[in-house]
Amino acid sequence: MFLSLVTVFALLAATIPVAHGGKILVFPHDGSHWVNMKVLVEELHSRGHTVTVIRATDSWYISETSPHYSTVMVDVAGGGNEDFFRLFVSEVIKIKRSKGSAWARLALDMELKEKFFELHKKVSEVVVHMFENKELIKFFQETKYDAVLTDPANGGGVLLAHYLGLPLVFNARWTVHGEAHFAVAPSPLSYVPLPPSELTDQMTFFERVKNMVFYTMRMHLYKQAVGSHYSELTYRYIGPDVDYFSLFQAADLWLMRVDFVFEFPRPTMPNIVYMGGFQCKPSKPLPQHLEEFVESSGEHGVIIMSLGTLIGELPHDLSDEIAAAFAKLPQKVIWRHKGDRPATLGNNTLLVEWMPQNDLLGHPKIKLFVSHGGTNGIYEAIYHGVPIVGIPIVFDQADNLSRLRAKGVAKVMDVSELDSKIFHTAVHEVLNEPSYRMNMQRLSRLHRDQPMKPLDRAIFWIEFVMRHGGAAHLRTESYTLPWYSYHSVDVILFLLTVALLILFILVGLVLSCCRLCLKRKIKSD
Amino acid sequence: MFLSLVTVFALLAATIPVAHGGKILVFPHDGSHWVNMKVLVEELHSRGHTVTVIRATDSWYISETSPHYSTVMVDVAGGGNEDFFRLFVSEVIKIKRSKGSAWARLALDMELKEKFFELHKKVSEVVVHMFENKELIKFFQETKYDAVLTDPANGGGVLLAHYLGLPLVFNARWTVHGEAHFAVAPSPLSYVPLPPSELTDQMTFFERVKNMVFYTMRMHLYKQAVGSHYSELTYRYIGPDVDYFSLFQAADLWLMRVDFVFEFPRPTMPNIVYMGGFQCKPSKPLPQHLEEFVESSGEHGVIIMSLGTLIGELPHDLSDEIAAAFAKLPQKVIWRHKGDRPATLGNNTLLVEWMPQNDLLGHPKIKLFVSHGGTNGIYEAIYHGVPIVGIPIVFDQADNLSRLRAKGVAKVMDVSELDSKIFHTAVHEVLNEPSYRMNMQRLSRLHRDQPMKPLDRAIFWIEFVMRHGGAAHLRTESYTLPWYSYHSVDVILFLLTVALLILFILVGLVLSCCRLCLKRKIKSD
Repeated sequence: MFLSLVTVFALLAATIPVAHGGKILVFPHDGSHWVNMKVLVEELHSRGHTVTVIRATDSWYISETSPHYSTVMVDVAGGGNEDFFRLFVSEVIKIKRSKGSAWARLALDMELKEKFFELHKKVSEVVVHMFENKELIKFFQETKYDAVLTDPANGGGVLLAHYLGLPLVFNARWTVHGEAHFAVAPSPLSYVPLPPSELTDQMTFFERVKNMVFYTMRMHLYKQAVGSHYSELTYRYIGPDVDYFSLFQAADLWLMRVDFVFEFPRPTMPNIVYMGGFQCKPSKPLPQHLEEFVESSGEHGVIIMSLGTLIGELPHDLSDEIAAAFAKLPQKVIWRHKGDRPATLGNNTLLVEWMPQNDLLGHPKIKLFVSHGGTNGIYEAIYHGVPIVGIPIVFDQADNLSRLRAKGVAKVMDVSELDSKIFHTAVHEVLNEPSYRMNMQRLSRLHRDQPMKPLDRAIFWIEFVMRHGGAAHLRTESYTLPWYSYHSVDVILFLLTVALLILFILVGLVLSCCRLCLKRKIKSD
Repeated sequence: MFLSLVTVFALLAATIPVAHGGKILVFPHDGSHWVNMKVLVEELHSRGHTVTVIRATDSWYISETSPHYSTVMVDVAGGGNEDFFRLFVSEVIKIKRSKGSAWARLALDMELKEKFFELHKKVSEVVVHMFENKELIKFFQETKYDAVLTDPANGGGVLLAHYLGLPLVFNARWTVHGEAHFAVAPSPLSYVPLPPSELTDQMTFFERVKNMVFYTMRMHLYKQAVGSHYSELTYRYIGPDVDYFSLFQAADLWLMRVDFVFEFPRPTMPNIVYMGGFQCKPSKPLPQHLEEFVESSGEHGVIIMSLGTLIGELPHDLSDEIAAAFAKLPQKVIWRHKGDRPATLGNNTLLVEWMPQNDLLGHPKIKLFVSHGGTNGIYEAIYHGVPIVGIPIVFDQADNLSRLRAKGVAKVMDVSELDSKIFHTAVHEVLNEPSYRMNMQRLSRLHRDQPMKPLDRAIFWIEFVMRHGGAAHLRTESYTLPWYSYHSVDVILFLLTVALLILFILVGLVLSCCRLCLKRKIKSD
């Protein structure tokens, strides 16, 4: 891993208006998470705020220059990168398709975990390099930022905000130890399923047992393996008595990439603001060649298929099975596909390298979306009311799709079992059973019926925190209680002890009385 | 109690527009609660909805005729009434002032509880009379209401909504068994204080013990004493296997008369919408004589005092003490006062029978509000940023004021100890210690800085429920779980049993091995 001095690029592009705007320091999470953060960054910039983004030299998704933000570049390389994840996804598909041994899966999982740990190690190095660079810290302090905006999928922004004494805003769905609600809102495991368990909010007894076991294991794993990096930095830079997870829970605002048309209803907190679907927008007209292709589908309409940006070439056998199933359908198909043309491809199927997914989903001719179950695609499908056939592969995809299945808007398939017949049956069912489309359109109506757009709501609350220097009145400090006090274990034990004491005294008194009576009786006898 | 047939007054006033509007059936809670409900009713009407309000013949606060709603009048009399409560408040003050015995207080409290039970009994009779009147039920069904709006301080609306199969919207702060959050959101007793305990969200160990004891007692009292009325009706009219409290928890929407500038931060649920301060509005100019009086105060400004509508004449000694304290101040005073003119009244004090409280609070000359701590007055004071000297007397007033004290915006006094000196000291402190006003103005800024006005938000969500026939996607059904499942007690016991079994088997195996080894050793010896 190549490490050198931290270099500050104060690339304050001329296009960034500063007058009357605030200043936001952004510590993002690299990879697909940046796609979400970028939406907020661009919107904040368009509203007149100055945004500074921290990025590692070899950042995978984050551009070095942008008209929307300036960058502070930290010269730390290594950690996760796109090539690794692309290769990983291909490997997963290969192992699943070849019904590879559990050991092969486990070995791959271990490799992935290693990569994640490496990623957190890299973030820690970025933090160390920032904190050790007095000039950079002085620059941060003199700039007088109004808030730190970060993705709690890593702990860098948390440390930075506390180090600089700035209000902390999360753009959250995942934290370093799992789904974000679990870190901040009471989440009874009896009806709040832990991702990626694929459970719903209505569980049988054994599903609840599974949920509890999953929860205990994950918390332990993450606290030990991931949290330890950040705990070490907390001791070093914030204070020896400070608990990293408390810093985390002390965030002013949690902008959650969640909407309850997708998530199951669950407890929340006053400082959680929901912005699920904040990236969704009305569709624009299609390019002419696509519009012509779509219109040529007639009454049958069009199916679109995309398995996300991380997917490389599909194995030939899988492509062939899917293509053969598509070929039998009266619909037209637009398939975002890489690699060789499948041998079984029908005349009705158009292969493309890239598609304007949102514009297609918003087209009235689109009947079905074949998706891997990435969150952004799901929200776009909900926004436009298009039902889904899901082929989950890695990460949270199966769990995301299981939520849609529970709501009756998706059919989900196992990539290891997938063949032409199974795929055709699934597509046919979702196309021809009206409940899928009706349910999805109901979700779409519910999702769109909000007093303000999710993105506007998110920006309002970021600006609220900037205006008021935080949101202390919305934030409980119950996380400072030890667990036995938080759960009232000490109080319950105390009350039980008192009750038992009273009982003993009463029993003692009764026994004494009895003995006294007995003595008198003996005497009188 | 006078009972007769139910009479339906279909007083659909000509002013009520029905075109494009929805239809809402309102089952209110009589008394001061109606003041809040009326705000929603009038706003719903102004937005083109047709509102029908159910009232008992001898209703205490609810007018029979209104341009904003029609009434369905149920001919049931008795229960609580204004005279009783006025007398009750006077008695409480008298007993407190005369340092009356604990027994006298207890006797009065018992009388109040009796009155509350009577009130719930009356509501039950209203429900029975409605349900037994086939013509009325047919009228309700044929009108095709879109939702039932009710105050969960009684259970009538809950039963009505379920009987008619309509979506249920609560205008809530109190339910039949206490503060409304406790019925719907997980409320850890370690940091969620139970009203009227006067505790805060940061409690010592013994305060947490008090909170737990209070909670247990209240839940028991209310479930037994108040809930029983409604449980009986549930068995009779909804179904023998139906639990009344489940009907209650199944409400689609909880419009909470709460804002976190006033309430401590605590867990909430996706179907809770906060509308605290929804009745607040900018002040209008004062009548000329008041404006002149206020302006005459010069740089010292004005104090206003009102102990609410339920207060009758104050005891003479109390009035005299307060008047004497006011007389010593350089400020002018406007005092909403009933009864004889206090002997010690100063020239600076104007007695009035009624005052435009909101318009006064919004006047820049007003420096201080002497209040009993009713919720509406508190929200108006927060809205306009005026600090408070509180003299709580009954109900939730002391608890309300304790929240303001914790936020550093009010000084609270005990009416039994109050004399001229104590009162003067309190008023002087709040007037001259800048933190009170600064803190209150900070709360005012936070309260006003919302993406939409609380009343608009409330109406949006009522209309949302009307448009979509409920809000099932925001509502957990976890209340259908038995308590041991909800709290995962069964799962934890199961996992402990499994762990113990494994332990026993392991210990058994080890022991068997040892024995075997020992036997062999003995043999070989």
